[in-house]
Amino acid sequence: MQLKINPTVLSEAIKKVEKVVKPKHATPILQGIYMEATKEELIFVGSDANETFRYLVPVDGENVDVIQPGKTVLSKQITDVLKKLKKEITMILNGQILAITSARSNFDMNTFDPEEYPKLPSYEIDQPTFSLKGTEFHSIAKKTMFAASESETRPILTGVCLDMSSDCMNFVSTDSHRLGKVKTTSTSDKELKVVIPAKSLDNLIKTFDLSVDVHVYCESDSQIIFRNGPLVFYCRLLEGNYPDTSRLIPSEFKSEMKINRKVFLEELEIIKGVSLSTDNGKGGVVKLHVNGAATISSYTAQTGKGQSVVEYDSIEGEETEYDISFSAKYLIDALKAIDDDFVYFKYQGNMRPFVVAPCESTVDELQLILPVRTY
Amino acid sequence: MQLKINPTVLSEAIKKVEKVVKPKHATPILQGIYMEATKEELIFVGSDANETFRYLVPVDGENVDVIQPGKTVLSKQITDVLKKLKKEITMILNGQILAITSARSNFDMNTFDPEEYPKLPSYEIDQPTFSLKGTEFHSIAKKTMFAASESETRPILTGVCLDMSSDCMNFVSTDSHRLGKVKTTSTSDKELKVVIPAKSLDNLIKTFDLSVDVHVYCESDSQIIFRNGPLVFYCRLLEGNYPDTSRLIPSEFKSEMKINRKVFLEELEIIKGVSLSTDNGKGGVVKLHVNGAATISSYTAQTGKGQSVVEYDSIEGEETEYDISFSAKYLIDALKAIDDDFVYFKYQGNMRPFVVAPCESTVDELQLILPVRTY
Repeated sequence: MQLKINPTVLSEAIKKVEKVVKPKHATPILQGIYMEATKEELIFVGSDANETFRYLVPVDGENVDVIQPGKTVLSKQITDVLKKLKKEITMILNGQILAITSARSNFDMNTFDPEEYPKLPSYEIDQPTFSLKGTEFHSIAKKTMFAASESETRPILTGVCLDMSSDCMNFVSTDSHRLGKVKTTSTSDKELKVVIPAKSLDNLIKTFDLSVDVHVYCESDSQIIFRNGPLVFYCRLLEGNYPDTSRLIPSEFKSEMKINRKVFLEELEIIKGVSLSTDNGKGGVVKLHVNGAATISSYTAQTGKGQSVVEYDSIEGEETEYDISFSAKYLIDALKAIDDDFVYFKYQGNMRPFVVAPCESTVDELQLILPVRTY
Repeated sequence: MQLKINPTVLSEAIKKVEKVVKPKHATPILQGIYMEATKEELIFVGSDANETFRYLVPVDGENVDVIQPGKTVLSKQITDVLKKLKKEITMILNGQILAITSARSNFDMNTFDPEEYPKLPSYEIDQPTFSLKGTEFHSIAKKTMFAASESETRPILTGVCLDMSSDCMNFVSTDSHRLGKVKTTSTSDKELKVVIPAKSLDNLIKTFDLSVDVHVYCESDSQIIFRNGPLVFYCRLLEGNYPDTSRLIPSEFKSEMKINRKVFLEELEIIKGVSLSTDNGKGGVVKLHVNGAATISSYTAQTGKGQSVVEYDSIEGEETEYDISFSAKYLIDALKAIDDDFVYFKYQGNMRPFVVAPCESTVDELQLILPVRTY
């Protein structure tokens, strides 16, 4: 392998794939980044066995010039050095030694054997299972992944469930105390039910260029592949049966209150401070008292009490006066996941799940929160 | 106590003093912030018993209006709530309950008994031991505190020693592997030798407004007081005898090499990556080879080797060809502490302390580094 590359292009490529690489991975070769040079493109791969990024850089003869094709696996020390170089870089592989030259500096660095690097599964690039606009993909991830469980007690709940039938796609996540759901029209005639780790979706939306489309390939029971321009993400699916959440979502309510989302969110952020636990920063329980206005309050014997009054826009239904208590964090997360300026608070009884949904939205979405019993 | 205050002014005051407040301090009252309202000013105090910030806000009848003087100690929950409020705040203290009102929100919060809050030592505000310009103070701290020890093995070495005689002030810090020293003209006729914790200096320069003067009061053996406009910092001195460092500093050298500081620093940052330990990120040892140019190199059996060649500007003395090895981190820290574009590398023998000093500087300063023996 022998090539010349612009340092910015190389740094960018390393940064695209290194997010999932763990410097202390039990499999030493996965501590490195796979790099392959062909006459047409450079291929970079970073992986932790569960999640893999693959990135392509075209050989344009200007920023990248391949004199002799080849492949290698770059150690963490090599990529650290490469990212700091600021002038044109020459790389020549002699056996397992990579000679790097750039302006004043030159290096002879040990590499890993590329034949030992795990092979990636193949997929039919022209036949995605379905495709979404980048912005749509981001919106779906943002409205669901935060509601997945962070605890490994029930591993299946740490994922976002994608349930695709011939006419619609449902994305659902729940930690059994709250649930986030987005329903969108299917662009495929396939049927599918898979659970994608929420952490992987988070890695994805932080790395993908969401101004371009995301193509999704799901041809196996164990893996899902996301393609976003020159960047491809391979992700292991969660195994197990995702609980049936459809019967949790109520369709009839005792009242629907329309309220300014940002104002309510701002007051909630203030009030949660009263019961803020210094241990986890999650804030405690807030009470919502609806009676001509929406009053949120919080009380702890140690700290004291606080309340904020927010005028609602309208309320309709049979029960327009009620009290209900929630985890402050869950209500804040739900309100942050919604984009519209106004939300509906849908009440169906003191100890029944409470629904928050946008008043106007291009997306069919809802956030459901189980109330907390207070005494 | 009854007062009205602008929320930005109040947030600013809390942020000025809370830096040293520890939310889990063993003495519960120190978890809070002391607040006293007089007809002339509001006084805020935050402390962890070793370090204390005191901040004054004038009562101007516009941003701050005191209707009834008084004092209290605000819990962490109260200050968290106060910092989030965005409209004019009214505070009324009834016994130990503080009633807070701002726009839509109101609170009744428990406070601590202000009589239990530790008293601050008094000092003669018009008679500082010495005064420095804020920028000068910042420069001295920046050039010394990083070289103090981070280990508690010899607690005295975690501080910066100020040795003041009638004509000059010496600021010195060392962790016994390197030393940073600044010498400046004394503005006082007093003699003094105290050791200030390096961490306290760091707190100071991050909080002080360094466009205005710093006045220093040192009237006791155990405490030093820094005043910077309306902000005062009280700090416990380190106890013990600071080692005599004057005989460590050589006056004669075998050669002096003049080199571009930024270029050398940049190459050093690249080369240290070769021996970068993933455990501590400190980088390992680099070798400096001087022979017509300055070549820095690094080698580890596991990673490989790298070198950078930096042309020097001039070299003078009897020994103009030599090899010497250092901790990469120490050399990087030393070069970062210097402001001038060019530095002198002063060599006095293979295993003797090496001195780095600016070529031109308004400050009399030096950085000394002990070499590392390599085989």
